Amino acid sequence: MTAYTATVTVRLKRGVLDPEAETTQQALERLGFDLSDLRSADRFEVDLDAADADEAAARADEMAERLLANPTIHDYDVAVAER
Amino acid sequence: MTAYTATVTVRLKRGVLDPEAETTQQALERLGFDLSDLRSADRFEVDLDAADADEAAARADEMAERLLANPTIHDYDVAVAER
Repeated sequence: MTAYTATVTVRLKRGVLDPEAETTQQALERLGFDLSDLRSADRFEVDLDAADADEAAARADEMAERLLANPTIHDYDVAVAER
Repeated sequence: MTAYTATVTVRLKRGVLDPEAETTQQALERLGFDLSDLRSADRFEVDLDAADADEAAARADEMAERLLANPTIHDYDVAVAER
């Protein structure tokens, strides 16, 4: 078994309203920053032990499917690195 | 001017309690997943135009300092890519 960290990034699908990102962008603009868009995402770093990187990625993927992401409104991606 | 996307990742400093991450970890464990730790972070993807990557990174860094992160409890890092 090897120790891995799987990083799951969960973002809203294109077209889904994101009022938090919109408010953050407006606040930055009020502070004088010039930006054309801002998107927010959640990032989960999961430490787990697995036989190899493929198994770690498969388990993180299942965690995203079952709990971390809502497939109706979210896309996600998984990246695995040895810890 | 070139179009860049600056990704600002904001995490809680080590030692700061993270009840959301703790609850998420417990929920995954109840679903039968085996993991040793889980940390959550916020990720902001900021689209902006800048003369070069260094200028884009410097502006994203200032956004993090002034609004996106709370220096008392957060660490952050900035990564810049051409869009």
